[in-house]
Amino acid sequence: MKFIDNDQRPMGHGRMLRKEDPRFVRGKGLFVDDVQLPGMLHLAILRAPVAHGRLVSIDVTVAEAHPKVKLVVTGAMLAQRKLAWMPTLSHDVQAVLVTDKVRFQGQEVAFVVAEDRYAARDALELIDVVYEPLPVVVDARAALDDGAPVIRDDLAGRTDNRIFDWETGNRAATDAVFAAADVVVRQDMVYPRVHPAPLETCAAVADHDAVDGALTLWCTTQAPHAHRTLYALIAGLPEHQIRVISPDIGGGFGNKVPIYPGYVCAIVASMLTGRPVKWAEDRSENLTSTCFARDYRMRGEIAATRDGRIRAIRTDVLADHGAFNGVAAPSRYPAGFFGVFTGSYDIEAAYASMTAVYTNKAPGGIAYACSFRITEAVYLIERLVDCLAHELDMDPVELRLKNLLRPDQFPYTTTTGWTYDSGDYEATLREALRIADYAGLRREQAEKRARGELMGIGVSCFTEAVGAGPRKDMDIAGLAMSDGAELQVHPTGTAVLRVSCQSQGQGHETTFAQIVAEQIGIAPADIKVVHGDTEHTPFGLGTYGSRSTSVSGAAAVVAARKVRDKAMLIASAMLEISVTDLVWDAGRIHVVGDPNSSVTIQDVARWAYGSGELPEGVDGGLAAQVHYDPSSLTYPNGAYICVVDVDPGTAVVTVRRFIAVDDCGTRINPMIIEGQVHRGLTDGVGMALMEMIAFDDDGNCLGASLMDYLLPSALEVPDWETGFTVTPSPHHPIGAKGVGESATVGSPPAVVNAVLDALRPYGLRHIDMPLTPSRVWEAISSTGLRESTA
Amino acid sequence: MKFIDNDQRPMGHGRMLRKEDPRFVRGKGLFVDDVQLPGMLHLAILRAPVAHGRLVSIDVTVAEAHPKVKLVVTGAMLAQRKLAWMPTLSHDVQAVLVTDKVRFQGQEVAFVVAEDRYAARDALELIDVVYEPLPVVVDARAALDDGAPVIRDDLAGRTDNRIFDWETGNRAATDAVFAAADVVVRQDMVYPRVHPAPLETCAAVADHDAVDGALTLWCTTQAPHAHRTLYALIAGLPEHQIRVISPDIGGGFGNKVPIYPGYVCAIVASMLTGRPVKWAEDRSENLTSTCFARDYRMRGEIAATRDGRIRAIRTDVLADHGAFNGVAAPSRYPAGFFGVFTGSYDIEAAYASMTAVYTNKAPGGIAYACSFRITEAVYLIERLVDCLAHELDMDPVELRLKNLLRPDQFPYTTTTGWTYDSGDYEATLREALRIADYAGLRREQAEKRARGELMGIGVSCFTEAVGAGPRKDMDIAGLAMSDGAELQVHPTGTAVLRVSCQSQGQGHETTFAQIVAEQIGIAPADIKVVHGDTEHTPFGLGTYGSRSTSVSGAAAVVAARKVRDKAMLIASAMLEISVTDLVWDAGRIHVVGDPNSSVTIQDVARWAYGSGELPEGVDGGLAAQVHYDPSSLTYPNGAYICVVDVDPGTAVVTVRRFIAVDDCGTRINPMIIEGQVHRGLTDGVGMALMEMIAFDDDGNCLGASLMDYLLPSALEVPDWETGFTVTPSPHHPIGAKGVGESATVGSPPAVVNAVLDALRPYGLRHIDMPLTPSRVWEAISSTGLRESTA
Repeated sequence: MKFIDNDQRPMGHGRMLRKEDPRFVRGKGLFVDDVQLPGMLHLAILRAPVAHGRLVSIDVTVAEAHPKVKLVVTGAMLAQRKLAWMPTLSHDVQAVLVTDKVRFQGQEVAFVVAEDRYAARDALELIDVVYEPLPVVVDARAALDDGAPVIRDDLAGRTDNRIFDWETGNRAATDAVFAAADVVVRQDMVYPRVHPAPLETCAAVADHDAVDGALTLWCTTQAPHAHRTLYALIAGLPEHQIRVISPDIGGGFGNKVPIYPGYVCAIVASMLTGRPVKWAEDRSENLTSTCFARDYRMRGEIAATRDGRIRAIRTDVLADHGAFNGVAAPSRYPAGFFGVFTGSYDIEAAYASMTAVYTNKAPGGIAYACSFRITEAVYLIERLVDCLAHELDMDPVELRLKNLLRPDQFPYTTTTGWTYDSGDYEATLREALRIADYAGLRREQAEKRARGELMGIGVSCFTEAVGAGPRKDMDIAGLAMSDGAELQVHPTGTAVLRVSCQSQGQGHETTFAQIVAEQIGIAPADIKVVHGDTEHTPFGLGTYGSRSTSVSGAAAVVAARKVRDKAMLIASAMLEISVTDLVWDAGRIHVVGDPNSSVTIQDVARWAYGSGELPEGVDGGLAAQVHYDPSSLTYPNGAYICVVDVDPGTAVVTVRRFIAVDDCGTRINPMIIEGQVHRGLTDGVGMALMEMIAFDDDGNCLGASLMDYLLPSALEVPDWETGFTVTPSPHHPIGAKGVGESATVGSPPAVVNAVLDALRPYGLRHIDMPLTPSRVWEAISSTGLRESTA
Repeated sequence: MKFIDNDQRPMGHGRMLRKEDPRFVRGKGLFVDDVQLPGMLHLAILRAPVAHGRLVSIDVTVAEAHPKVKLVVTGAMLAQRKLAWMPTLSHDVQAVLVTDKVRFQGQEVAFVVAEDRYAARDALELIDVVYEPLPVVVDARAALDDGAPVIRDDLAGRTDNRIFDWETGNRAATDAVFAAADVVVRQDMVYPRVHPAPLETCAAVADHDAVDGALTLWCTTQAPHAHRTLYALIAGLPEHQIRVISPDIGGGFGNKVPIYPGYVCAIVASMLTGRPVKWAEDRSENLTSTCFARDYRMRGEIAATRDGRIRAIRTDVLADHGAFNGVAAPSRYPAGFFGVFTGSYDIEAAYASMTAVYTNKAPGGIAYACSFRITEAVYLIERLVDCLAHELDMDPVELRLKNLLRPDQFPYTTTTGWTYDSGDYEATLREALRIADYAGLRREQAEKRARGELMGIGVSCFTEAVGAGPRKDMDIAGLAMSDGAELQVHPTGTAVLRVSCQSQGQGHETTFAQIVAEQIGIAPADIKVVHGDTEHTPFGLGTYGSRSTSVSGAAAVVAARKVRDKAMLIASAMLEISVTDLVWDAGRIHVVGDPNSSVTIQDVARWAYGSGELPEGVDGGLAAQVHYDPSSLTYPNGAYICVVDVDPGTAVVTVRRFIAVDDCGTRINPMIIEGQVHRGLTDGVGMALMEMIAFDDDGNCLGASLMDYLLPSALEVPDWETGFTVTPSPHHPIGAKGVGESATVGSPPAVVNAVLDALRPYGLRHIDMPLTPSRVWEAISSTGLRESTA
């Protein structure tokens, strides 16, 4: 980590310490569990111990008799109020509390509300539930078997577990290319089920006021406005009476987009008791019952010429969505995956098909920094390219350089119809090679191999499609709202920006202040960014899919430019000169050719609120509101290089170096971008090497604690080496593309490619993630070559 | 009181129970003293016992040693932080704590912050202060004497107590009319110093967060945004870091427009202690140190023809502003007084001059439902007209009918240049006469007089000028902001309106919901009105001078109409027909001639947020924001008739009947209007008969408790009889004029006229308010006629 100079206080874009950090480092952040209200009760949820089982009986009388218990609620009680089921954000329904049968281990069965958290948890053990076990479907392939138990028998007319079959691309044309290709490589691969494991688990405090009917809900949500609309539909409360506050959030990564039953339970509990009610998950509950990610079985095929020109991609995916579509399925198709599965390459034909199924597992989804399944698509193509290099015995960098899209091809429309906006992919890769000293690494590797040491160098190139606006195919809950931004400059010259997106730790209060500062010349310290409260902010879809800077950031720019335009008009009245004779210069407006005849934006603000006469037709005040619809997605890209050492004796993988060169267009605060990249790279090392939510045959979750679900710590990751190129997006008003998910998306294939590169002496082409010592050891052993190299 | 039918739930304008009342009647209102924050400290203010005295020494060591005391602050300590003086809202400065000398009894000298309110008050008595007495100026006339002590010696270069000399009208032309007039009547009169005595006294809770520098201030203010700007200037905090919340307020009446030292003390205390600090006045503090109203000595002259045609008015006023211009002086002139001192009459010439002075009394101001001194002006003209009637021996109604402006004269520009918008003054007066059965009353009076009983009938006609927008002559603190309104319809079809004005009990949450409902066809119950929080609301000047409905109400109408226009555009896409072929019908939009082809506003809202395709160029969402500058003031008017009985033995005045006919233009919720009128009539009876803040020669306030400062209770007022006429204002989008001050303004002269009418047998023409039994008894006695009638 480089030292960041505190004196660097740019007026706009540039390195600047985060405005939110003084609060966090002093323990003054406000997380949901910090919310304390007078008379607040505590809610605990009874979760199903079985993965599939009919609810035979439930007896709450002993629990109700607990002296500190105020309320015990079962699914049957909710059903009387028509609250037993709730819509999800993905055109499905989900049980708030089980009424008919349990569909995954950890599902919500009942809840207790008590005077304190301890009593509530104790009373859960006093509830007596009898389940009749049902056959469990854990494997997505088995879910499609004839005779497989129908998990979602609550859905009228459903006779199997298939959710959808979707496809993209021209199958016949792709097949024809494959049939004629010099070389075809096929590789099956699994992207295992993982969990983002945010620092803060899910929590809610519901405060329903029986007098005026108003509900205030503090909760860990990435999409406060969408949640509010859904609560209005679920709880039957008028939307104007609901306030959703999403305060500081300890990480989201998509895991906090869905509406969880716990939120609804807290609302119901407050309505029934007339008191505020807090629900906060423990770690085990978070790991077993909140939305997982990935869980894709992919068959990948790549067709190429003998000299390494990639011609076509073909893939078939089986997606395991668990028992409910939490926030898994966009309404038309898995847009992200279908958008970028051809990767960063110039490919003439491609076809993808995807089947999704219900299983007896917790709901899966987009819930981990993956923009509607881009993560899986990038992994697929980047592994396939390395498999092709393996087959052709080519250097994987050479193969990529031969196929990367060229700058003159942008805007580039893929064979499946997605238009990449901008990029210089070769420059990005060459910058990574330069930082890494790729040639030097290969020389080092050769020396080490000669000594029997296993060193590997892995490369990945990726393209994302992020920053979705109100596209009907990327909606949530049928809501495809454009994102609002409201900028108000006060009479004394400070400003407030209100945005619809919601920070989960990304540093919005800093980045957005800088975005506005760059446009209106007020220092970032004097610009307050308000977010995460439906009472304070304009409507919008929230934060997911790297859309904060790319969508809300754009909205902020447009609002700021409106304010600047109005300031110019007012300045023309102040200076008594035509606006065409004025120049804007970073917060100072002066007469052309006469820098001394000037006013500042602060002068204009005071004037605008009444100290002076305004031009004809100009309203008082200095403010602007916009709703912003992006005309297109933005396409961040990057090139990553990973260097690993594999211990031939223990099969332990050590990531020795990692070089990440990202192109996210215009860089607003490089320090924050680097922080985002560092985080995502850590995600990637975790997924590649250690993370997997496994289930046994009975559907028991085997990753229910952080002792079982391993996350990388500082000891498992190297000092990250980052670099950048800049190709601004032509669609974004300041050319920014969004970087929140890039490294999570791009790094796993680099790590896996590096490990397979290290294992080249064994002839291994693929091992499924996570590349734990036992998996790698087994793979090496399976080659029968272990003895010879050890 | 008539019973209000709870089932009357109009979709727009009409009688409807107040939405805020369920909260109030259940004790769930949130007044500032209800705010409880963890770790909150309590602040008490040491007030000066003398009216004028140099501060010799102040010793706080004993107070500081009190075990529960956290902080004791003096003016000297504030001076070190440049906080000892603050700007007022009226182009003056005021001491936060005394540094040099005390200028009125009750002035703030020091404050104590302690763990509880009791300890804070106890510790005040441990502060040892020595004052050197100075000569006291109590009488405004004495303030102008040569050699009078200069009260505001803090103001550079000041050598006397004169604040301003202003005038309006053509003096020479007026004098000429007077010289040629058949009849001239002159009457000196005093409008005594009074206090609105709101139910809730002033209070503040300041919570300064040392980590992020943010200040949240709950306080009893009628103007949250203007206060925020001033606090930014006073406390040196950036405006964007200040949030002012004005929750439910127990009455304002102008008394809560000013910034009081206590608010600033609470802010400073929180900044110094790092903890939330509450300050709440007791009743005595409120009565002695917050802004008073009136205190005008007026010389009035009226010139007329022998047959009762009023030709000219001339007046000279001496205004006592106390020790500081709290919120007394608009920047250019006492606009309200100068605007309407010619009353409701067609008068050819008028001239008014006014001198204002500082005295050793608490700050005076506009602080009591008087729209920049309209109350005094109406009293002056209506008393003069009755004096003229007395002189001419005419019936006061006949005299008024002869002189009232006729409907065909509107818009009518007065001789001093103010343009009254609309009215039918004769119809209004005749409606009052009808309700009162004026002829019958006169017959009854004649019968009673024959029996020696003292019955009086008093009439007043009044015109107000209210609803000031950002006029430079009616600014506060140099801020002349236009008033914002933001209307947001949610996807589920409920709505939120945010307005810059602030309710102090008027029922804004109901009236504004009805205003919007009438425009967009969503039920008032589904429209939430947000106000009183700078974080939640657009900028605006706040609520005073009857400007809520007349200004912010207009802003709400304009915003709602914008929403309706957008809804029509979206409906045209939904129904696939040109917008010109659509009809708006109270929340339903249908095809011309085909009422069945229709969509509701709720359908449109859902569509607008993503469920359907929007027309080209139409943003997502359904919302609008406006800032509204009224093109003109509005001119409510009314005619009041009061019937009194005076006990010849005790001189006690009993108000037997009171008939109030108000014309406030379009009537949104007649029940709320009647409530406003009832309140104002009670004010008027109080001022006419019992209220006065008196001072002894040493400047001691003689009205420092509600035992000394008498307010009318239900026993002292009659069952009010109200009526109305409607002449919509052409300047307001729905023709509403504002009614919050009408009855306070119009009723005192009716009561006084009635009492003098009752005393006609004694030949009395004028007695100064308040007409207490002793004053009336003395006046009767002075005639020497008492024996003969008793």
